[in-house]
Amino acid sequence: MTVRMPSTAELADIATSLHMTLLPDQVQDYHALIGGFLADYQMIDDLPDEVPQLRYPRAPGHRPEGEETCGNAWYWKAMVQGAPTGKLHGRTIAIKDNINVAGVPMMNGSATLEGFVPSFDATVVTRTLDAGATILGKATCEQFCLSGGSHTSDPAPVHNPRRSGYSAGGSSSGSAALVAAGEVDMALGTDQGGSVRIPASFCGVVGMKPTHGLVPYTGLMPIEATVDHCGPITRTVRDNALLLEVIAGPDGMDARQRGAPAEDYSAALDRGVRGLRIGLVEEGFALPNMMPQVAEKVRAAARTLERLGAAVTPLSVPDHSLATTLWTPIGCEGLLAQMMLGNGGGHNSIGLQDVALIDRHRSWRDQADALSASLKLCMMVGEYGRRAFGGRYHAKAQNIRLRVKRSYERLFDAYDLLLMPTLPIVASKMPAADASVAEIVARALEMIGNTAAYDVTGNPAMSLPCGTVDGLPVGLMLVARDHGESIIYQAAAAYEQAVDWEAL
Amino acid sequence: MTVRMPSTAELADIATSLHMTLLPDQVQDYHALIGGFLADYQMIDDLPDEVPQLRYPRAPGHRPEGEETCGNAWYWKAMVQGAPTGKLHGRTIAIKDNINVAGVPMMNGSATLEGFVPSFDATVVTRTLDAGATILGKATCEQFCLSGGSHTSDPAPVHNPRRSGYSAGGSSSGSAALVAAGEVDMALGTDQGGSVRIPASFCGVVGMKPTHGLVPYTGLMPIEATVDHCGPITRTVRDNALLLEVIAGPDGMDARQRGAPAEDYSAALDRGVRGLRIGLVEEGFALPNMMPQVAEKVRAAARTLERLGAAVTPLSVPDHSLATTLWTPIGCEGLLAQMMLGNGGGHNSIGLQDVALIDRHRSWRDQADALSASLKLCMMVGEYGRRAFGGRYHAKAQNIRLRVKRSYERLFDAYDLLLMPTLPIVASKMPAADASVAEIVARALEMIGNTAAYDVTGNPAMSLPCGTVDGLPVGLMLVARDHGESIIYQAAAAYEQAVDWEAL
Repeated sequence: MTVRMPSTAELADIATSLHMTLLPDQVQDYHALIGGFLADYQMIDDLPDEVPQLRYPRAPGHRPEGEETCGNAWYWKAMVQGAPTGKLHGRTIAIKDNINVAGVPMMNGSATLEGFVPSFDATVVTRTLDAGATILGKATCEQFCLSGGSHTSDPAPVHNPRRSGYSAGGSSSGSAALVAAGEVDMALGTDQGGSVRIPASFCGVVGMKPTHGLVPYTGLMPIEATVDHCGPITRTVRDNALLLEVIAGPDGMDARQRGAPAEDYSAALDRGVRGLRIGLVEEGFALPNMMPQVAEKVRAAARTLERLGAAVTPLSVPDHSLATTLWTPIGCEGLLAQMMLGNGGGHNSIGLQDVALIDRHRSWRDQADALSASLKLCMMVGEYGRRAFGGRYHAKAQNIRLRVKRSYERLFDAYDLLLMPTLPIVASKMPAADASVAEIVARALEMIGNTAAYDVTGNPAMSLPCGTVDGLPVGLMLVARDHGESIIYQAAAAYEQAVDWEAL
Repeated sequence: MTVRMPSTAELADIATSLHMTLLPDQVQDYHALIGGFLADYQMIDDLPDEVPQLRYPRAPGHRPEGEETCGNAWYWKAMVQGAPTGKLHGRTIAIKDNINVAGVPMMNGSATLEGFVPSFDATVVTRTLDAGATILGKATCEQFCLSGGSHTSDPAPVHNPRRSGYSAGGSSSGSAALVAAGEVDMALGTDQGGSVRIPASFCGVVGMKPTHGLVPYTGLMPIEATVDHCGPITRTVRDNALLLEVIAGPDGMDARQRGAPAEDYSAALDRGVRGLRIGLVEEGFALPNMMPQVAEKVRAAARTLERLGAAVTPLSVPDHSLATTLWTPIGCEGLLAQMMLGNGGGHNSIGLQDVALIDRHRSWRDQADALSASLKLCMMVGEYGRRAFGGRYHAKAQNIRLRVKRSYERLFDAYDLLLMPTLPIVASKMPAADASVAEIVARALEMIGNTAAYDVTGNPAMSLPCGTVDGLPVGLMLVARDHGESIIYQAAAAYEQAVDWEAL
């Protein structure tokens, strides 16, 4: 690529778009000056990009068909063998398809990205390979990760392995489905409004959204940096702790990170819950669409933890629903700025960016009608927030978020864990292909009333199964102070050992 | 303000601008769904904003005229008395006019902001008041801080106190001029490409750009978060260390900060330079517009430091000019996204935002012709970078920046300080009001060849006077590793004690 100069007509058009009135000779003046700036662009063009080197060889793999897709949960099968030893040696793993595996196609659930091949491995991919894992392929995810239902993924909806035609949850739909179906031992997911915990809950597996910034997001396609989280999805709490140990900690390339190291989460697994102070968040049981049977299963789980020695106290957290409210301008205006108009790049932060992804993703504009209804809606809300209000509500939400964060910090002085249902519902029937926009959007966003709050506050939150309703799994959510993952694992392991959730 | 719904026509227009083709009944469908999102906006509207409370009473003050402006260096006079005791008790201070002093007008050098009154104090303002300082007013700065010359400030250019008609340097033009003229003891400035160090050099005072993130930028109008720095401008090195002690350290509200605490910089002042390893950066003496007399004064300063016991070694730093090259896409695309199209708000970071500023600043679009030539040019470059290249060079520059940062880290294993001229020139005559665009831009940007590099790398860098050329001051720049401010103060104090720079 060579950096070409704009024509004077192009420059005049740019000036007009920036609300400037330039006379023709002023256009000439500015045009003459712009060459010096573009010489800097050319110099940058002439240099090599600085991305991590490939460390493990791999073949490009293949696109599975029919039964091999496991209900459309596999987007791509490609084996990458990690190091010969390590914590994950002998374990198989699926990688959510918004996470770069170099040389293997990635479409992030969107036909608009079809054919894109990442040029470097995400840090979390390198770390799982360094730990000896074997990658088996890319797990289908919802379109640009913007749905809690599994019906918005291109090329096809992901079926719940427990009941075909029902949602696997999203947006890490394939990740949770593949773990639940036994196709892999573990999977990596991402969570901006609940996208690790929702499919974990629907599919009956364990999903952890770690503290914001604990796991590097380098080499993942973002939605918005302040709500982007990557975390492990596994069948057991022990595996979950193990995978988080491997992927957590600073990589020096992601501005989301604040220097917190990975801990030995496995060490917390056998501590029991005696003495733990658990707050049962009443607002989390009172969502408008809360199924009573779901609430009852989760209350029963709380009683089990009490029986095991924890002190469980019902409490009211008025900021719980406010945190979710704040997601709307932060998420909608943010995803429009970063993921869509910014082509997946980001301003205002120092960190590694994905030039190849930017080059490919900018063509979404030619296929915007192919975007999912939930994404279109969020983009329109974001654009309206900018146009009509100049971004003031995004800004005000960020300010209120700081206050809410402080109020949760005080809460975690009094409680070790908060407990509530992950979701108000169990897996629902997926909408038909010709469903109304209203139904498509409802099935995409109806379940985030408890999960999104902790993407806004950044606190670690896990979903683990605690029973079934008509054969479909119910998720229990445990939330801790920042970097309190060990406390979550401690309680989750004790609960998991004490019950056979499928029989509850 | 009440959050109004868009009309269906507005929504259709928004969809079109986002490249979507919606049929009329689809517009209706999305319009029906958008109300739920706007209910969240309304809930945020109904809540109080969360900004710091006012701690020190003040009157709004007055706009000075004639001689009282000190060569247009004062934008506004308003006295705010700080705490009755503290490190800065009895000291007077001027605040650069892109820094919030609540209740006192602020225009950031731009007629488009005329009449704006901030609603809360910047953290650095609160900290200077807590330390007992007396604020005397707001110092004029260049239009939106985007000029190294002092001729782009509204309402009038700032004159160098040493020679009327000559540039005071920018963009912290008034801050440096007021300190040099003896109107105040100290001033706060900000630096994105050299804007503390350039006017310090032109006016013959001491200006420190601290490590990126050391001083909170909360309550300051930004240019682009990754190059925004706030720092002290003073007559002596001792005062500079004192003021930095007061303003540095985390405030919990600025994503630029990484937790580094303030140090006792004053403690470093009497350590001398014996044993310090100083690298004399040859590229910094070889800028195309380097005045030989300037280079010679700075080499003489290096010899003085050698005589005082430092080991001075000439060295080549090939990345020096590359770091400045990287500024072009980072700065131009970034300032367009954050300062202009984002109305001074920012995405992708958790921190306090200024809703009142956003509300006022978004009207720049109605007066875009009144923007300075240097700002117009940078905005057009930024927009071209987005349009023609999708932001890929901004992204690639951020990647190369990480590599350059690492190479400087290695350099600072071998050297305690780097030394070079702050600027290639001394203060130049300001262009006439009817000067060509080319001349206005040249006088605004010609001097950043050494300074901008350290806004990109984030390393602390100080300018201190080291002689004169035809009566106009020359600046010596000292650069240290991240959070190596004490080493800079140590060397600068030793140099200052050893020479009478005005006689050199």
